[in-house]
Amino acid sequence: MSSSKSKVKLTKEQKRQVRERFKRRLYITMFEAKTPVGRKFDLYLMGLIIFSLFILMIESLPSLTPTTRYVFYIIEWVLSSIFVIEYLLRIYVSSKPIKYILSVWGIIDLLSILPIFFLAFYSKMHYFRIIRILRLVRIFKIFRVNKFTQEAYSLYHSLVASIYKISVFMFFVILLSVLMGGLMYIFEGRENDAGFNSVPESIYWAIVTVTTVGFGDITPTTDFGKFLASIMMLLGYAIIAVPTGIVSLEMFKYQYKEKKDVATCGYCKATNPIDATYCNQCGSKLNEETE
Amino acid sequence: MSSSKSKVKLTKEQKRQVRERFKRRLYITMFEAKTPVGRKFDLYLMGLIIFSLFILMIESLPSLTPTTRYVFYIIEWVLSSIFVIEYLLRIYVSSKPIKYILSVWGIIDLLSILPIFFLAFYSKMHYFRIIRILRLVRIFKIFRVNKFTQEAYSLYHSLVASIYKISVFMFFVILLSVLMGGLMYIFEGRENDAGFNSVPESIYWAIVTVTTVGFGDITPTTDFGKFLASIMMLLGYAIIAVPTGIVSLEMFKYQYKEKKDVATCGYCKATNPIDATYCNQCGSKLNEETE
Amino acid sequence: MSSSKSKVKLTKEQKRQVRERFKRRLYITMFEAKTPVGRKFDLYLMGLIIFSLFILMIESLPSLTPTTRYVFYIIEWVLSSIFVIEYLLRIYVSSKPIKYILSVWGIIDLLSILPIFFLAFYSKMHYFRIIRILRLVRIFKIFRVNKFTQEAYSLYHSLVASIYKISVFMFFVILLSVLMGGLMYIFEGRENDAGFNSVPESIYWAIVTVTTVGFGDITPTTDFGKFLASIMMLLGYAIIAVPTGIVSLEMFKYQYKEKKDVATCGYCKATNPIDATYCNQCGSKLNEETE
Amino acid sequence: MSSSKSKVKLTKEQKRQVRERFKRRLYITMFEAKTPVGRKFDLYLMGLIIFSLFILMIESLPSLTPTTRYVFYIIEWVLSSIFVIEYLLRIYVSSKPIKYILSVWGIIDLLSILPIFFLAFYSKMHYFRIIRILRLVRIFKIFRVNKFTQEAYSLYHSLVASIYKISVFMFFVILLSVLMGGLMYIFEGRENDAGFNSVPESIYWAIVTVTTVGFGDITPTTDFGKFLASIMMLLGYAIIAVPTGIVSLEMFKYQYKEKKDVATCGYCKATNPIDATYCNQCGSKLNEETE
Repeated sequence: MSSSKSKVKLTKEQKRQVRERFKRRLYITMFEAKTPVGRKFDLYLMGLIIFSLFILMIESLPSLTPTTRYVFYIIEWVLSSIFVIEYLLRIYVSSKPIKYILSVWGIIDLLSILPIFFLAFYSKMHYFRIIRILRLVRIFKIFRVNKFTQEAYSLYHSLVASIYKISVFMFFVILLSVLMGGLMYIFEGRENDAGFNSVPESIYWAIVTVTTVGFGDITPTTDFGKFLASIMMLLGYAIIAVPTGIVSLEMFKYQYKEKKDVATCGYCKATNPIDATYCNQCGSKLNEETE
Repeated sequence: MSSSKSKVKLTKEQKRQVRERFKRRLYITMFEAKTPVGRKFDLYLMGLIIFSLFILMIESLPSLTPTTRYVFYIIEWVLSSIFVIEYLLRIYVSSKPIKYILSVWGIIDLLSILPIFFLAFYSKMHYFRIIRILRLVRIFKIFRVNKFTQEAYSLYHSLVASIYKISVFMFFVILLSVLMGGLMYIFEGRENDAGFNSVPESIYWAIVTVTTVGFGDITPTTDFGKFLASIMMLLGYAIIAVPTGIVSLEMFKYQYKEKKDVATCGYCKATNPIDATYCNQCGSKLNEETE
Repeated sequence: MSSSKSKVKLTKEQKRQVRERFKRRLYITMFEAKTPVGRKFDLYLMGLIIFSLFILMIESLPSLTPTTRYVFYIIEWVLSSIFVIEYLLRIYVSSKPIKYILSVWGIIDLLSILPIFFLAFYSKMHYFRIIRILRLVRIFKIFRVNKFTQEAYSLYHSLVASIYKISVFMFFVILLSVLMGGLMYIFEGRENDAGFNSVPESIYWAIVTVTTVGFGDITPTTDFGKFLASIMMLLGYAIIAVPTGIVSLEMFKYQYKEKKDVATCGYCKATNPIDATYCNQCGSKLNEETE
Repeated sequence: MSSSKSKVKLTKEQKRQVRERFKRRLYITMFEAKTPVGRKFDLYLMGLIIFSLFILMIESLPSLTPTTRYVFYIIEWVLSSIFVIEYLLRIYVSSKPIKYILSVWGIIDLLSILPIFFLAFYSKMHYFRIIRILRLVRIFKIFRVNKFTQEAYSLYHSLVASIYKISVFMFFVILLSVLMGGLMYIFEGRENDAGFNSVPESIYWAIVTVTTVGFGDITPTTDFGKFLASIMMLLGYAIIAVPTGIVSLEMFKYQYKEKKDVATCGYCKATNPIDATYCNQCGSKLNEETE
């Protein structure tokens, strides 16, 4: 293995081998977050992403002088170039480049560098680089055995388990918002100059209200509109309880599913309550089998 | 059966039979969401409803040119005519038309087409067509075995089970809102020009506040008013916990009631899981005892 | 009994007896909500209270003409007189008048009629009559066996059980609000004209924010103020979970406490789990005792 | 012991002993909240802190006359001096002064008196004295056996137990806020004059929205911005359920962990309540087996 280094002139096959080894090592660095070198690489990368986000935020401040803006502009180009190189390297080193490109992470990586084209054309669209922040979620891939990661998984599981309930709930919230938005448009309308200028705008108001955000940019002015809004708010008040109940229940189920101690029957492998003496599927004694 | 088609001249009885068969087939199409043809009909209908809602929304935009508005006006008439024909057909094909007309779905169907009269008179009231959106709830009748429908039923059950608690809670929220609204009217009053112009308007403010919506169209200006509002908000903060607790508990009960079915052993009276074959305390067969 | 009516001239003793009987009957009518006549009286009274509240609300509308206002003024005097007579009668018929006057209901009854004096002096303070709405809580005394009343009791119990936790929680919410209000006053201050004119006003803003009401009458304008407000809102977001968790838990405990079947020992009266065979306090057999 | 008082001239050793005794007594008074004298001292101190907070609040009112302000100014100096003396005494009497100074309470005590320097320079920074309010948390040290203190501990425990979950949740809320803030900046931007002047300001808006506070100082004006905001609010509506579920679950676990202590029977190994004397399955004495 190490003999290839001692030779001055390398055969084609040896060159390929060196390249492969380099590619392999790069692959481990860039993709395998569990290895020490991969973790180090990912941490540096995250530092760079956070730094680039700070640059983006400061660069957007209206109080910047042209000179400072120019400095930030250059920093942005440097950072973006690094991310482009990183993306190309990732494609190069992966054994199945298409699979990487079409994976969720691959798409996020691509979307994070695409806005550079807008940067070149001085278009405001280059702020789409903020999508880069999604790459920070990779932190949970780095610290797998961490308490935070476990809890993240637990939260993720609870949310996935309640996805159907939440969807049904959202269906009704949107249905209610459209209905109430339409009614408010009829009673408040364009002529009252209260902001209910169209049905979509009234639906926007209804969503603002039912979610208890309540900006106040659009508010009812007629007596009946206020009455209708009051009913809607009280409804929203009861409705807000539903997603909470859903998630609480799923968390409870997830928590106690894990911990439900069971005794497995030695014969039929059926699960029994931990305090059972006989298997409830085949009637054989449990204690004996376990011992 | 098929012989009736071959004859040129049909007897009165045969005509009635053909009509009956046609009516029966239409009934299945329009009412029986579980049959393939019925499901297909309902899906097309829902597509039409969603399309008509989009037309309604766009038509309300103030930026439309008179020409575009005219086009939308014609589309609306076509769609409305379809829904009128559908409603009349539903009455025609159902064996008990009165029962259909007075059913919840029958009333919603009627309310969805009634606003056409306002459309004829150029009144803004024709936007009441938005009630049409309620017909989309029929989606849960189409996909009965679906996971979404099961969850919808579970949510529905939990809400129905907590209807008494929620009502009592709402009684106290409204009572508190009226009381606080009255007090705020006394201390803020008309003269402060802060929006507390009457007791009903102050109650509206109290509901906006206690539900944590907080539009900000009416806000206290006096020191004592702000103090009273602060107390009310802190109260509302504690109160918001109540409906959540109610719904969470009902969901929990619903979830674990389903699973709580137990089989009691005939010998030792120990409780076993419902799917157990042998008692887990004494090992005797459960099925025999139950029979 | 009925002989007293047949006599023209009554002795002093007989007069007293008649008076006592009349008083007793009135007492049952006015205080005993469970008797048919008492329930009827209370229902009429509640109707009158609700009517008087509607009068109060309408009377406060700024758009009333002087004539209408005058009519409402007279109605108010009539209603108020009825409530004064009712209050005096309640004192007259109760065997321990002082006890009634100092009871919670007695104080509410008194506070409901006191604002009449302000009515006489044309002071706005007469709107304090809105306290009358508290008398509607008596509805739960009338319908004792009702499902609503049971749920009201269950809610009441859960809230009372969590009163210590809620108090501790409120202590910290107020502490946080005062602290954040003070900090916001330092960084936003009077000079920014953003509404943070004094520490109490800043505390009012902090309460508006932490309870997620968010009127928007006072909002941070400086960058650091916005940063501080963001932290506070995220904190408030986590904090809002606490009262919900408290009440949910108490409801859960109340629900499952009721249903926890217990076996009481025949000797020592100690409560045992329902599946216990021997009392866990005195060791005597439970089954025998129960039978 | 008491003989030292009777002597006129004290030896050096005796002087030291008197000083030590005095120091010891002071230490008990100032640090040992459980002793009667310590509790009394702490209660007086808290009264003084609350009084000084009221002075601070009133002093900030813009409507004060110069004379009143001057009076408050003097009161502040007196109060501050007392707190300085108290702090110095605490350092003097504690056996390990450095440990006290670097403890959480020591730092809070120091921060509470430091703003006096700003007071001397007429700087607004002297309002940092509001940090003093944190010293009121000591109330839970005074009333240790109190029901409130127990509940405070229970709440504290539940929050600490859910700190990982809440952190993960906050990570995603902030990530979502930054992402949405960036997108809103692109679509609303500076030119619309709606307040989305920079990315940090848009992130501030996103936090205001996702936490359902909704001040309304910055609101979307473009159609696409309103659409994006609607999606964000609906997301936030589902998200708000998560911390509630977390805390509810932790409270549930804490509650039922406490009660889950069981005594296992030495003979039949059945689980009994911890306070049981006899096993409820076989009737044998539990205490003997445990010993």
